[in-house]
Amino acid sequence: MVSLKEVVNDPQGLVVTDALHSLGYPEVGAARVGKFISLEVAGQDLESARERVDEMCRRLLCNGVIEDYRFELRPVAVA
Amino acid sequence: MVSLKEVVNDPQGLVVTDALHSLGYPEVGAARVGKFISLEVAGQDLESARERVDEMCRRLLCNGVIEDYRFELRPVAVA
Repeated sequence: MVSLKEVVNDPQGLVVTDALHSLGYPEVGAARVGKFISLEVAGQDLESARERVDEMCRRLLCNGVIEDYRFELRPVAVA
Repeated sequence: MVSLKEVVNDPQGLVVTDALHSLGYPEVGAARVGKFISLEVAGQDLESARERVDEMCRRLLCNGVIEDYRFELRPVAVA
């Protein structure tokens, strides 16, 4: 999950907020739009997978200047 | 969370997969890229909020032809 930092302006989120207001949902306050990335990662070791994915986020998936990221690993058994 | 249906081609995900391979992460199988939208919704009643948000997803946030969505509500106390 990669989302813009709180302090960064989010024009796409503002458009979503406006659109929802126009459609008759005045209860919506702020909307923020980010990215949701799912990865299949092969491997046995959860801890090393965590380190590798963290590195992928920092090197490619997330722009640390304006974005934050968080992720969770879900182990999947393969037959 | 709005993501492309499994059967829909995801060019952005393919680019992410290729890029991760190039950066030295061969363990990455498939990557899929979707949207993560967070909304602040005013109200007291969780059940009616759930219905309203579900409606927002169907009417605006998700293109039901090619995308799936899921969401969770997290109650926040306001002083």
